[in-house]
Amino acid sequence: MSVFTKVSPDQARAWLKNYVLGELLELKGISDGIENTNYFLTTAHGRYVLTLFERLSEQDLPFFVGLMAHLANHGVPCPRPVADLNDRMVGHLNGKPAVIVSRLPGAPVSNPAPAHCAQVGEVLADLHLSGRTYAQAMPNPRGTEWREDTAPRVRHHLTLQRAALLDEEMRFQSRHAFADLPQSVVHADLFRDNVLFDGDTLGGVIDFYFACNDFQLYDVAIAVNDWCISSDGELEQARSLALLAAYHARRPLSAAEHEAWPAMLRRAALRFWLSRLYDLHFPRPGELTHAKDPEHFARILLSRVKHHDRLREFWP
Amino acid sequence: MSVFTKVSPDQARAWLKNYVLGELLELKGISDGIENTNYFLTTAHGRYVLTLFERLSEQDLPFFVGLMAHLANHGVPCPRPVADLNDRMVGHLNGKPAVIVSRLPGAPVSNPAPAHCAQVGEVLADLHLSGRTYAQAMPNPRGTEWREDTAPRVRHHLTLQRAALLDEEMRFQSRHAFADLPQSVVHADLFRDNVLFDGDTLGGVIDFYFACNDFQLYDVAIAVNDWCISSDGELEQARSLALLAAYHARRPLSAAEHEAWPAMLRRAALRFWLSRLYDLHFPRPGELTHAKDPEHFARILLSRVKHHDRLREFWP
Repeated sequence: MSVFTKVSPDQARAWLKNYVLGELLELKGISDGIENTNYFLTTAHGRYVLTLFERLSEQDLPFFVGLMAHLANHGVPCPRPVADLNDRMVGHLNGKPAVIVSRLPGAPVSNPAPAHCAQVGEVLADLHLSGRTYAQAMPNPRGTEWREDTAPRVRHHLTLQRAALLDEEMRFQSRHAFADLPQSVVHADLFRDNVLFDGDTLGGVIDFYFACNDFQLYDVAIAVNDWCISSDGELEQARSLALLAAYHARRPLSAAEHEAWPAMLRRAALRFWLSRLYDLHFPRPGELTHAKDPEHFARILLSRVKHHDRLREFWP
Repeated sequence: MSVFTKVSPDQARAWLKNYVLGELLELKGISDGIENTNYFLTTAHGRYVLTLFERLSEQDLPFFVGLMAHLANHGVPCPRPVADLNDRMVGHLNGKPAVIVSRLPGAPVSNPAPAHCAQVGEVLADLHLSGRTYAQAMPNPRGTEWREDTAPRVRHHLTLQRAALLDEEMRFQSRHAFADLPQSVVHADLFRDNVLFDGDTLGGVIDFYFACNDFQLYDVAIAVNDWCISSDGELEQARSLALLAAYHARRPLSAAEHEAWPAMLRRAALRFWLSRLYDLHFPRPGELTHAKDPEHFARILLSRVKHHDRLREFWP
């Protein structure tokens, strides 16, 4: 359950007086997400999501909220922040920064087919193409510096075998700078639970609170490492090719990106292995949600390392 | 037929490469409107309207296009301009300035019930409340100066009886400055054909190309003079009250506005009588659409003058 800050219907009604969204019809807590309090908010004019930010730094919110507005303005299907009567997109409700965004249709798919992966590839390319003109910037808070800071802190919790994998991968990544690859704002968390499908049609992309500036290929690698794998973490050819081909059709991948692909898949796997290890061994005070299994990403990383030289074969 | 500039499917496909709206599925000319060329544009991602501007000054477009974006950002149901890959909302297609906007659901109602009028009143208040923070401004191009310039040019086309009505009304209006009433950006053309209903639910407001800064009450008067009248131009109590009460519930009307109401209804009627007379007697070169009947607004004005002292009775 992720409603950390309770909002009553009366409080929502009072809050809605700052907006032109019509009368409140329904308010319902959402039991997803670990960073924010979310409510489905239905008014006479439409379906929205009310989010109260529990942990994000208030000074970072304009980057995330402005990004959703920017992408939505280009037609990328994502939550669109609603401006209030003072023309602000972020307000305060029950002591927390809060936004109202449009609610997208659909639900996550747990077993994506190649046709789902193709739509994910296309929307990711659209996000990158539109993101190139976004004026604000955010360095990746889980980039090189974070990686090199985090690895030694989690290392002594690992088995010898896993510690050896971590050491090898940290050395390997330190030799890759990826200097020439295209960058832009990226989603950086495009897992299956952050894409909604309405039937078999993509309804939209959600949860932009890990978005930052990084390599576009890094975003592709994060998505492929989740959307296009079997249960043991191995890459699956049909779904990988579907995602990459659809992406490539909108934003052509370069020879340099082809060259970087195996190392980037490994970097993306390492990032989530490290953050899951960290969340498991250094839980935040008051953490209500169980940390996700780090071993899932250890297996993914191991598979990418093992098949390194064959990873370029799944390429459009 | 209002397709003045033809756009082929191949041209639309090429143009869509500037956007992230997916592949073209359908392109269909719209036979409405006299100022622009409009196409319904359906892509893999949604339903849009492609507008090529035939007559509007290109330097005025940012005001209108920015206004729709501003209002849509607040949740006002109106066409939302889509930004292209260069982050511009106005581009060029076949030599004309062009925009893609979201397509709203629904169609105009020709016989509005009080329930329709109430929704019009509410959306008009929402438009005014949201419009107060719009940064750009546009003086009313059909304001006092235009009125005093236009009346003598059309006067000699009138019957003696109508000329007397015009003279009387011009004298009457010159004595009303309305100095203390609330102003903002206003739609200024909220007739029945500019509001779409999806079943009995308001789908949205369209055609913002007469929008300007003026009294909010002027916008209400324009709407009431069209939505709340019988076929002979008389105000109809149930619909007037429904529109005004719904407006008042969102944006309370003041005592000063109550005082000004009869004169404002007359000013709104005079504006459309004059513009229709002008369009009839001074048609633009290449005008393809028959001018609308000026006499309709002469009757409305005559009724408002006749019942001047009773017009304040229909007030929330």
